[in-house]
Amino acid sequence: MSRIHNFSAGPAVLPEPVLEDARRDLWDHAGTGLGIAECSHRSPQFDEVHQAAKARLKRLMGLGDDHEVLFLQGGARGQFWMWPANMLRGGRATYLDTGKWAEGAAADAARYGTVDVPWSSKASGWDHVPEPGAWGALPKGTVYLHYTSNNTVAGSEFSYVPDAGDALLVCDMSSNILSGPLDATPFDFIYAGAQKNLGPSGVTVCIVRKSLLDRMETDLPDIVRYQVQAGKDSMLNTPCTFGIYMIERVTAWIEGQGGMSVIGQRNQAQADKVYGVIAASSLYRPKVRQGSRSRMNITFTTGDAALDTRFWQAAAEQGMSGLKGHRSVGGLRASLYNAQTDAAVDALCDFMRQFESTQG
Amino acid sequence: MSRIHNFSAGPAVLPEPVLEDARRDLWDHAGTGLGIAECSHRSPQFDEVHQAAKARLKRLMGLGDDHEVLFLQGGARGQFWMWPANMLRGGRATYLDTGKWAEGAAADAARYGTVDVPWSSKASGWDHVPEPGAWGALPKGTVYLHYTSNNTVAGSEFSYVPDAGDALLVCDMSSNILSGPLDATPFDFIYAGAQKNLGPSGVTVCIVRKSLLDRMETDLPDIVRYQVQAGKDSMLNTPCTFGIYMIERVTAWIEGQGGMSVIGQRNQAQADKVYGVIAASSLYRPKVRQGSRSRMNITFTTGDAALDTRFWQAAAEQGMSGLKGHRSVGGLRASLYNAQTDAAVDALCDFMRQFESTQG
Repeated sequence: MSRIHNFSAGPAVLPEPVLEDARRDLWDHAGTGLGIAECSHRSPQFDEVHQAAKARLKRLMGLGDDHEVLFLQGGARGQFWMWPANMLRGGRATYLDTGKWAEGAAADAARYGTVDVPWSSKASGWDHVPEPGAWGALPKGTVYLHYTSNNTVAGSEFSYVPDAGDALLVCDMSSNILSGPLDATPFDFIYAGAQKNLGPSGVTVCIVRKSLLDRMETDLPDIVRYQVQAGKDSMLNTPCTFGIYMIERVTAWIEGQGGMSVIGQRNQAQADKVYGVIAASSLYRPKVRQGSRSRMNITFTTGDAALDTRFWQAAAEQGMSGLKGHRSVGGLRASLYNAQTDAAVDALCDFMRQFESTQG
Repeated sequence: MSRIHNFSAGPAVLPEPVLEDARRDLWDHAGTGLGIAECSHRSPQFDEVHQAAKARLKRLMGLGDDHEVLFLQGGARGQFWMWPANMLRGGRATYLDTGKWAEGAAADAARYGTVDVPWSSKASGWDHVPEPGAWGALPKGTVYLHYTSNNTVAGSEFSYVPDAGDALLVCDMSSNILSGPLDATPFDFIYAGAQKNLGPSGVTVCIVRKSLLDRMETDLPDIVRYQVQAGKDSMLNTPCTFGIYMIERVTAWIEGQGGMSVIGQRNQAQADKVYGVIAASSLYRPKVRQGSRSRMNITFTTGDAALDTRFWQAAAEQGMSGLKGHRSVGGLRASLYNAQTDAAVDALCDFMRQFESTQG
């Protein structure tokens, strides 16, 4: 059958030209006679892919020599503990509690120091992110401020970069990395599972300010030390080579589309369409407050769990997959990552209107 | 160009029918209209793949309900510390020092308890593995005996399963898992990076005896706790879905070939051919002693580093890739994992004879 419209929250839809590249290169990559998943991670063939992936990522994020790009494994969740194990070292950190994964990151960090959570929207179902600075002054000696720039489950997103003052600025950017123009130079550490905007699952992008590397904990196994991984250019052991290859292809595709401003405009326009249908509807209501709504994960509900279920089931029958909300919160969710097509978004909007028209 | 002969030590050659499946399924998997790298890890579509991968692995290894199969991330090297962090807990363990990775595993374990290394072949370049029991009695209270069943760098392999007595039996099986018939029931913990015999890099197979799970350390981040990962069926967070898919396809291919005895016979026959050329030669000599030689990684040398280099360069010109020895030891290495073809082995043997005939 032909490909259907995929609204999965991750692993998520990938650009079709990238899939076409992958199908070719799994068999014979770059005319070498070796598939991309079959060549040594230390071969010149793979090194070229690896260096290009790093260079494209940095270029798209406006980063220079001050930052190191690592391709690790274990997902963002692996970074929940690895970052504080390396950098917190008994000190103090502030976490903004904007969702399920933000909460999980804070819980893992608490093993390695004092975690302050001065701001939370958990009581209202994580339905908004803070206004700038709403968390107040950071306690004296705070090592870093951690936030989750897009909350995949709740469907909220920061529209600004928080000011960390004298503390380091740390961000779990898993679900909106490369979703629009961003000057990433203020960030000291960024991490992101690849399976939303960057590629398949199995590879975790970590971007760390190089000057921090020699301030990190040394009493850890080498494989979980950023300093060691940076010294080995992510090749302490065999990385997820196919995942890195896919990131290189996805970032090349982004550059080919016109870069971050084109991607950002498209993402905004797609989100505006769906939010527009919700706003014009008397059936659907958004789950997140105005001003905090995500461009990546649009969460909404009819207010009736059984009707929500009928919605995503009927959508699936019409070739629209992945619209069921996260199992922890229910409702509906449409994920519109970079590779989402205008055709899919238009089909969803049409379906939403049509579904509403069939309700009493 | 057409595909060349690939002797890479890993990531390594994959079965061509599996590559063909992957090329199809990246676009549209099982008629769902979603690519296999684009569907949720929690979807019924992916769950079917995941459960089949587990079932096939267990079937091929003769395992039943006593063992749990986990698909984690971070490579075998991630297990070097994760296993002792979970299970050693200040106790005592014995490591057999048969190669670079065995040594690395012991070094990481020493962070979590007392490590005894009663046997080592490091002084002779790790050119052999021990005779059964050559390491003597395990110290009283030893929690586990750890060994590396195949040493990818040195090119040695255990031809038997060590007797751990009252201790647990633990094995890094990265480079010869599923290479021939093996009753895996005596093993308490097996781990293997996938990128040799199982699939692409990025997924790590861990097989643990279930009864151990509640004896493990609980004071660790969830993501590095086997007990938690087992309770979540490897879905605490997003696993490397494409890697798991590939393992399912590779194990299906193995079953389709006739299972472990057919694969084991083919591996032995291929290795015998190359060792036969070496034995008949006055140019090449094996790097590993008789009785310890690996069926997976055949290491040899001309004894002249410059000539070794000319060998692998000339081979590469004739469409045979990956014959350079590991950077830490030099020399030559031909890796003959499960997916290696008879045609590639025959081409290599012909080349070896031809190359020798042009010398002196």
